[in-house]
Amino acid sequence: MPLLTLPAITDLHDDALAGRLQHAIDNKTKPLGALGKIEALALRIGAILGDAAPVLVQPQMLVCAADHGLAARGVSAFPSDVTWQMVENFLAGGAAVSVLARQHGLALTVVDCGVRRDFAPRDGLVVRKVAAGTADASAGPAMTAAQCAEAIGNGMAVVRALPGNALLLGEMGIGNSSVAAMLLARLVGHDVEACTGAGTGLDAAGRAHKARVLRDVLALHAGATSPLDALAAFGGFEVATLVGAVLQAAEERRVIVLDGFIASAAVLVAQALRPNVAQRCVAAHVSAEPGHALLLAHLGLDPLLHLDLRLGEGSGAALAWPLLESACVILRDMASFESAGVDRKGAA
Amino acid sequence: MPLLTLPAITDLHDDALAGRLQHAIDNKTKPLGALGKIEALALRIGAILGDAAPVLVQPQMLVCAADHGLAARGVSAFPSDVTWQMVENFLAGGAAVSVLARQHGLALTVVDCGVRRDFAPRDGLVVRKVAAGTADASAGPAMTAAQCAEAIGNGMAVVRALPGNALLLGEMGIGNSSVAAMLLARLVGHDVEACTGAGTGLDAAGRAHKARVLRDVLALHAGATSPLDALAAFGGFEVATLVGAVLQAAEERRVIVLDGFIASAAVLVAQALRPNVAQRCVAAHVSAEPGHALLLAHLGLDPLLHLDLRLGEGSGAALAWPLLESACVILRDMASFESAGVDRKGAA
Repeated sequence: MPLLTLPAITDLHDDALAGRLQHAIDNKTKPLGALGKIEALALRIGAILGDAAPVLVQPQMLVCAADHGLAARGVSAFPSDVTWQMVENFLAGGAAVSVLARQHGLALTVVDCGVRRDFAPRDGLVVRKVAAGTADASAGPAMTAAQCAEAIGNGMAVVRALPGNALLLGEMGIGNSSVAAMLLARLVGHDVEACTGAGTGLDAAGRAHKARVLRDVLALHAGATSPLDALAAFGGFEVATLVGAVLQAAEERRVIVLDGFIASAAVLVAQALRPNVAQRCVAAHVSAEPGHALLLAHLGLDPLLHLDLRLGEGSGAALAWPLLESACVILRDMASFESAGVDRKGAA
Repeated sequence: MPLLTLPAITDLHDDALAGRLQHAIDNKTKPLGALGKIEALALRIGAILGDAAPVLVQPQMLVCAADHGLAARGVSAFPSDVTWQMVENFLAGGAAVSVLARQHGLALTVVDCGVRRDFAPRDGLVVRKVAAGTADASAGPAMTAAQCAEAIGNGMAVVRALPGNALLLGEMGIGNSSVAAMLLARLVGHDVEACTGAGTGLDAAGRAHKARVLRDVLALHAGATSPLDALAAFGGFEVATLVGAVLQAAEERRVIVLDGFIASAAVLVAQALRPNVAQRCVAAHVSAEPGHALLLAHLGLDPLLHLDLRLGEGSGAALAWPLLESACVILRDMASFESAGVDRKGAA
């Protein structure tokens, strides 16, 4: 991939900081460990931002959208036109991610990474279109190596231009749960059947058809075993753009908030390229797509929410966002036993 | 219980409203059911408030505090003085529930229902003290029937004076996980061993001792089988005050947000007294206390968060609060397929 230089991602491991964070949490006025997974979240955010009193600033919701040639093979319950229609809905403020981002003060940026239709310019839309949809992965690679590199570079450039220290990942692209399933199957080694779900709502027959198509596509690209070759083979432009966004955010030590199966698949690729990426990540939720739990387990990420979501768009990341704020508020604002004059366990 | 008239709680069942709510959710721009448990939450809040476009107004976090005579029997890892010390911490703004309530704009009211120490008057503190701690339940009833009725009436009066249409339940009282365990064992019929957890942090030996003490107390009050007799026998003043608060909120059709094991035990008593109470309830989370999952299952409530919390105070209710707001925002503000011009499934 000579067209692109990927950033180095350092190891965040810092015993001194980890010790300060653990000491701060353990001295808050509560029984040891009583805030459960919120404590682990606070430790993680503190480690990412390198601060024992972390402040999340100007969080950015990045929704990457593109179309997929493979959608013509009947792998989705919805037609490809829904991709551009939902982009319009995101920008008009009517989609789930739109209303949730407003609720939580998340800046929403929608990136046209390769949608088949062109959009009129407006606030919140960034056009970084590689092509009008990928090629059909059942006939050849979804992208060329050059297209793949271009999309990754786009994602890096988009994040470089955004302020803040937290990036929430979202996506839209009819057919992209097939992409995520194939990336998971190829890069982790699971059977594609275990990685294939209902997506936007396939019935049992539709899901069986989808799994058969994906098995054939995987066989066609049997040689695409490296992360970048697999990404180019299966697509899509929005996933590759998210890979670049994740790498850039990781280099800058932003907190990266995963959403569902597809956004997490971009992190899977980024982590395969640069093994310290997952240290910067928070898994917002585990979705109803069966591959998602497998993917998060491979990344070693424990999801915050278990709400049977299967929408994508970044909606799960937005729903989980207040928990990240809570973790920081607890680290920053809760009293210690000493400052509050509260007796410790067994002090009676 | 001649000293107290409990409110009638009507059945919320309303097919027409339920149909309007389901139709509204199903026409939002997302695959059917794709927002998972958030959809069920939206339906529930709409049903409670009787509104297909519900608005949560002036949410109230009510933290009821009291001491327990049984604490002298070594059933808690912390000394009883921590109850008043934590009340001071709540009011000073340094406790977990304090910082989380501030984060989410929840009005915080702390009720002294029967703490052993008196507090100087100040904003946010309501004094409704029945006595300076309950009697030791291992020697006799924790409260008299009159004290129990007084505490329930106090809770009703406190909620009657609060604005808003949502009540979040919190509590503080060293020893009160023992109360919750005994109420669950007695009113639902579980063995007390299954209902007994580490509380604020008992080790295995401490927990075994706690279970032995509770078994003896249950045997001593074998005749206390009605909800009010059990409540009077086991305590405590904060639990009884919460029972009254729940009944009043239920009568007014406020959304009642459960917190952990102890707040949920108050709802268990209220539901045993008035079987339509649970219709008004949302379970914020399931805690690490083993009895909590059993209690929620009995009430038929599916918890929103699974974060291994075991702090109480209302901290879990506060952490879950943004999800309730999200459910309402989705009902109110998301576009429909028609309004957004998005194709439906299979429309291609």
